[in-house]
Amino acid sequence: MAPLKLYGLVGSTNTARVTAVLNELDIEYEFVTVQLSTGAQKNPEFLAINPFGLLPALEDGDIKLFESRAIAKYLAIHYKGAGPDLLRSGNKAESAAVEVWLEVESQEFNPPISSLVFEVLVKKLLLGAVPDGDVVAAQEAKLGKVLDIYEKRLSESKYLAGDNFTLADLNHLPYLYALLKTSYAELVTSRPHLNAWWDDISARPAWKKTIAGFPY
Amino acid sequence: MAPLKLYGLVGSTNTARVTAVLNELDIEYEFVTVQLSTGAQKNPEFLAINPFGLLPALEDGDIKLFESRAIAKYLAIHYKGAGPDLLRSGNKAESAAVEVWLEVESQEFNPPISSLVFEVLVKKLLLGAVPDGDVVAAQEAKLGKVLDIYEKRLSESKYLAGDNFTLADLNHLPYLYALLKTSYAELVTSRPHLNAWWDDISARPAWKKTIAGFPY
Repeated sequence: MAPLKLYGLVGSTNTARVTAVLNELDIEYEFVTVQLSTGAQKNPEFLAINPFGLLPALEDGDIKLFESRAIAKYLAIHYKGAGPDLLRSGNKAESAAVEVWLEVESQEFNPPISSLVFEVLVKKLLLGAVPDGDVVAAQEAKLGKVLDIYEKRLSESKYLAGDNFTLADLNHLPYLYALLKTSYAELVTSRPHLNAWWDDISARPAWKKTIAGFPY
Repeated sequence: MAPLKLYGLVGSTNTARVTAVLNELDIEYEFVTVQLSTGAQKNPEFLAINPFGLLPALEDGDIKLFESRAIAKYLAIHYKGAGPDLLRSGNKAESAAVEVWLEVESQEFNPPISSLVFEVLVKKLLLGAVPDGDVVAAQEAKLGKVLDIYEKRLSESKYLAGDNFTLADLNHLPYLYALLKTSYAELVTSRPHLNAWWDDISARPAWKKTIAGFPY
């Protein structure tokens, strides 16, 4: 059987979301680098896999997937035998909480943190451009309000969906890692339960393996 | 057994996403109106269900859920006996395509269309405020590019995930319905395959039932 083929870039937050799942479940795969700097993601060969021309994408035999959260979910459903059940599918209440916090990450957490990281890490450190102060201030405020709710949630349960580490936690790793490399790290470190959760989930061997070779 | 209790507002796009699933699967439920105009979504009783203070939320006995897409997914998983399998869970390739297009809706389609609808429908028609022309132009352009990819996809398959209507299609209904009530309807009607898909999915009895009583 051909191994899974992951198209991505080391250091890309969305690629890392998938790599983290692959490492967590100890799945073998082939990594194909798509160089954003050369525009390779807009080549016809890549657009045939992901018509949006975005990283990452996955080939599992004839099945082609894109959108990092869809790939992560697919792997958690079909390859769960190899590791922890990241979806808690045997428990109705816990799996419901996983679905809820997966969507909180996607709808409430991701928009402000991805904008903020783009301004203060990608734009400033990687592209050599100046961050937009208005955008930074607005997104920092928005993210802070979201993280206040996380702080409360994580004072009540060890992980977002309950007592167990799940995909709902994992999906937060890439942007939190990036944020903590900036002068906005205090958004996390100033909130004790959030910070303890981050220390816990970022210490997992699968995540350590994921960030090996990151340029930041 | 206590029936499901849905907290929402008739006319709210995110509430309608859940109502559409309930109608599609013919599930009985109690509807509890949360009046945004009085700030009822920020009352302690409601915040105990959804700490983000956003609509909709669902109670299924002791299980409390929020985020419309999480609720929709939960219903499709646990109540599928009553209607079509909206997740195509028996078919690996088709269910993978459902996950992919659910995420496309969430990550690529929703941001521009929800911004555009806020400016030209909510702000203009419902709040009596003036749309921000720069935001409208930027989001219209962004949405157009996304819909070009939908147009190609829907020239190749009848529905987003293949031959069957799934949750990936359904999740698009609320914002497309709202957009088509504005002068930006041409974004859909000018693209023949997209428009034929819209005509098909919006003609479903479950959707007709969902929009009964909408104020727009």
